[in-house]
Amino acid sequence: MVIDVDASLVERHLLELARHGAHGETGVWRTAYSPEWVAAQDQVAAWFAEAGLDVRRDAVGNVWGRLAGDREGPVIASGSHIDSQTPGGRYDGALGVIGALVALRTLRERFGRPRRTLEAVSLCEEEASRFHATNFWGSRAITASIEPDEPERIRDFDGVSIAEAMRAAGLDPRRIPEAARDDVETWIELHIEQGPVLETAGLAVGVVDAITGIRHYVVQLAGRSDHAGARPMKGRLDPMAGFAEIVTAIIGVALEMGQPAVTTVGRIHVEPNLPSAVPDRVTFTVDSRHPDPRALQEQHARQEELMRAIAQRRGLEISWSTPLDLPPCLCDPAVLAALERAAREQAVPFLRMHSGAGHDTQNMARIAKVAMVFARSKDGRSHTPAEFTAVADAVAATRVLAATLHELAY
Amino acid sequence: MVIDVDASLVERHLLELARHGAHGETGVWRTAYSPEWVAAQDQVAAWFAEAGLDVRRDAVGNVWGRLAGDREGPVIASGSHIDSQTPGGRYDGALGVIGALVALRTLRERFGRPRRTLEAVSLCEEEASRFHATNFWGSRAITASIEPDEPERIRDFDGVSIAEAMRAAGLDPRRIPEAARDDVETWIELHIEQGPVLETAGLAVGVVDAITGIRHYVVQLAGRSDHAGARPMKGRLDPMAGFAEIVTAIIGVALEMGQPAVTTVGRIHVEPNLPSAVPDRVTFTVDSRHPDPRALQEQHARQEELMRAIAQRRGLEISWSTPLDLPPCLCDPAVLAALERAAREQAVPFLRMHSGAGHDTQNMARIAKVAMVFARSKDGRSHTPAEFTAVADAVAATRVLAATLHELAY
Repeated sequence: MVIDVDASLVERHLLELARHGAHGETGVWRTAYSPEWVAAQDQVAAWFAEAGLDVRRDAVGNVWGRLAGDREGPVIASGSHIDSQTPGGRYDGALGVIGALVALRTLRERFGRPRRTLEAVSLCEEEASRFHATNFWGSRAITASIEPDEPERIRDFDGVSIAEAMRAAGLDPRRIPEAARDDVETWIELHIEQGPVLETAGLAVGVVDAITGIRHYVVQLAGRSDHAGARPMKGRLDPMAGFAEIVTAIIGVALEMGQPAVTTVGRIHVEPNLPSAVPDRVTFTVDSRHPDPRALQEQHARQEELMRAIAQRRGLEISWSTPLDLPPCLCDPAVLAALERAAREQAVPFLRMHSGAGHDTQNMARIAKVAMVFARSKDGRSHTPAEFTAVADAVAATRVLAATLHELAY
Repeated sequence: MVIDVDASLVERHLLELARHGAHGETGVWRTAYSPEWVAAQDQVAAWFAEAGLDVRRDAVGNVWGRLAGDREGPVIASGSHIDSQTPGGRYDGALGVIGALVALRTLRERFGRPRRTLEAVSLCEEEASRFHATNFWGSRAITASIEPDEPERIRDFDGVSIAEAMRAAGLDPRRIPEAARDDVETWIELHIEQGPVLETAGLAVGVVDAITGIRHYVVQLAGRSDHAGARPMKGRLDPMAGFAEIVTAIIGVALEMGQPAVTTVGRIHVEPNLPSAVPDRVTFTVDSRHPDPRALQEQHARQEELMRAIAQRRGLEISWSTPLDLPPCLCDPAVLAALERAAREQAVPFLRMHSGAGHDTQNMARIAKVAMVFARSKDGRSHTPAEFTAVADAVAATRVLAATLHELAY
């Protein structure tokens, strides 16, 4: 059966939500627990209520909208996050919240009360754009994965702890454990792709069968600062030269292993960072991903060996930490099958693909059967005001989500 | 004839001057026109007077001490700069001011009035550590090389113009042209080596026959920011990968050309500098030096060609400016010969060498016959609180300077 969704509703919600934290013409700057974030969550709560859902805010500020089913028992939930990069665009996270909202509203209006309970959720935090170490705060609260000391320990770039930020937003960090759920059986997240794969394939929708494993290294490479003119090349302990060799080598590993291996060096800090001084120390990040667990392990092992060998040969000291280390997340075959049946039923052509980005879904996988739906991103852009997903693509993905929820819950 | 200098005087002056802007146990943080700098110049003026020199401050704040000769006519001058890196050490610049002071004091006390006029000078600025674009402010004033708009145009990192900073130190920037001299016939600068060449040779003193040519590039390499997971390796326009290849290539040119070619990448700025984003843009400095004019030209041409070719192959946009471009400075054969005779007469073994660092001397070469004397630096360190020159080495270099001035002026 064809399930249509109101395209103008999707578009209006996207544009209206983007007003909260609007940044330039198309950007959004809406970090966790900021005033703009509070206003956006209030807006979502109002829309949930308007759609006939029972609204509830949990202890970390996730906003839930519930469409109770005839039967008691575990629920089927969908949603995404409301916070943005600094700045980000209108679609990352927001589209998944609006997609879940519109899907539940559409199902309720057309089919009434479901057999099984459906919930939409606007998660509080995913981007780590304000608090570097939050690491999916909203879905970690739901999955009871927040350590007791984290609220006071994790601080933003201005030194504000996440506990203080929660209190400023009217939330009590001591109550975080109350946000945990044990009754979510199935979780489906709609999200923009954030890459160019669907665009290259000429398709609006992706069905995601795995989320990549991600490890972040923070590498410290220490040499010896010297005068750029007075110290001959021979005898230098130049960590910038070592850094350059390492970057080429570890990116080379990803190139050699081939798609879908990716490796990125995105952040660097140099001391003393002066034009006429060989640096003392170069600190940099390595983001290394692969969706296949064995390939990921090989990739990391090869990269670590190269980093060590290059540093050693050059007489540089090297050390690293891995502040983020997420294993690949494999989606549930039954949920995937339901998504694929729904897409075919709605005559929405789709690509089965993996996600190269991390998502709340990989946390939800601790407590639920999960899968994801992707909507095409123009030019593969995201984390920028330039990110764009056409309304028609957002609608196609929302229809696949709604039809899947219909199959599972009605 | 053996000319001795008072080692305790040299040591005491070094330690006392280092109190002005003392930073930690052995460091100095004394930027141009700061209160610490004013106090240090006052101290030098007091020592000049104590040594029996006629003290004069010029329009940019260089402090001169004059030992008038019997004859009218051009003068023989020696000195160095009083400002430091942030932080720097006790010796860079300071030793040359104290060396000139002690040399003139020694000559006056032992030999009285010279035939020809001798001057010692404490130059106001050389390090560009406060004002990025000063480019030897003190010696440029003396050689009438400051453009009329520079005092208002050049600003420090807090936005203060050098004109404002001069006024705060009691100087009138409109009077800068009055600092110009046309009566300096010979200029000799004593300075720490700042590199490991003398230490490696086991010698306390160097006689400098050339100052390296230096070009600073500020290179902008622009690609396209992408999500570190969602964008496959193929199709990336990653300026960090391009940067790494460029660093290896241009440092490779210096290694291939061999000593004394040097190339350093010391400063980098990455946008947006996030762990999970392919950067949009990498801006970096290249410091490329060679004391031989033809070799320098070849070195720069090869490096520029490599930078362009690597950027082009990777689809990156590249552009650069060259905010510093100083040709090699060849020292005067007659002054060199006088230095070498003096060193032999004083039984101070020395190395004839080039300077890999830039110095005020290369500006003074516009109006005078120049040469330099180097004193050994421990571990070749400079521009750090760890820089160190033994008193015995400072004394040896000062004796060579004093004996040379004696030969030329008495």
